[in-house]
Amino acid sequence: MADASKFLEGWHPLVAERDLAALPDVLAEDVSMGAPPYWNRLEGRPVVAFLLGVILHTIEDFTYHREWVEGDELALEFQGRVGDLDLQGIDLITLDDADRVARIDVLIRPHNAVGRLIEVVRPQMIEFLKRQAEA
Amino acid sequence: MADASKFLEGWHPLVAERDLAALPDVLAEDVSMGAPPYWNRLEGRPVVAFLLGVILHTIEDFTYHREWVEGDELALEFQGRVGDLDLQGIDLITLDDADRVARIDVLIRPHNAVGRLIEVVRPQMIEFLKRQAEA
Repeated sequence: MADASKFLEGWHPLVAERDLAALPDVLAEDVSMGAPPYWNRLEGRPVVAFLLGVILHTIEDFTYHREWVEGDELALEFQGRVGDLDLQGIDLITLDDADRVARIDVLIRPHNAVGRLIEVVRPQMIEFLKRQAEA
Repeated sequence: MADASKFLEGWHPLVAERDLAALPDVLAEDVSMGAPPYWNRLEGRPVVAFLLGVILHTIEDFTYHREWVEGDELALEFQGRVGDLDLQGIDLITLDDADRVARIDVLIRPHNAVGRLIEVVRPQMIEFLKRQAEA
């Protein structure tokens, strides 16, 4: 059984400090992500750590607000902005038994802020996938 | 203090049956909604009931999944589709002391499904606001 409080003790400072080097360690190896731009899930630690990192770097004034915990299922509300566009989002997180993220879904409103986010994320994502294909 | 279980006992059948006539009764008069298309909140029962109704009618195969409750704050995950586009969403709901919705935020992914939803919602919303202005 996961310990959500222990996970959150590590997660909150990681996000607050945008500590991308520490990000892979809190993700399960076979972590699965439902991201704002795509319906198809991203699978595996490298691509999920990369995309979460890009999102964390792109959203300014990122702050967490309401928080829900039911066993190993968490819902964490956040606010921030991309450029001059305010946004509200939620991380839906399932923990594994080692208190790592087994599944994360990121939902954001409103639509235009997600569009702006995608403009920033897409070229970096293409670059990342190209590097992976060449490796 | 709100009774979330009592609220959910009414909310789930209402949504399942798309019982739009019953919708206004579960909303506070000064309900406030953060909708997927707009950053600015919609205020008051008439416009919120209208937009929730349009969304409920537009999303097909609407089903609720994970559910989080912390006092009077709820997070309800749903899935569905608009046309051939699958979507995942969440309702973040704050109840008032009469177990009515005082605040609701609706977040949906992915981006293209929200775009499709907006195409359907926008003309109906403009029509509604026009009727309100003329009334």
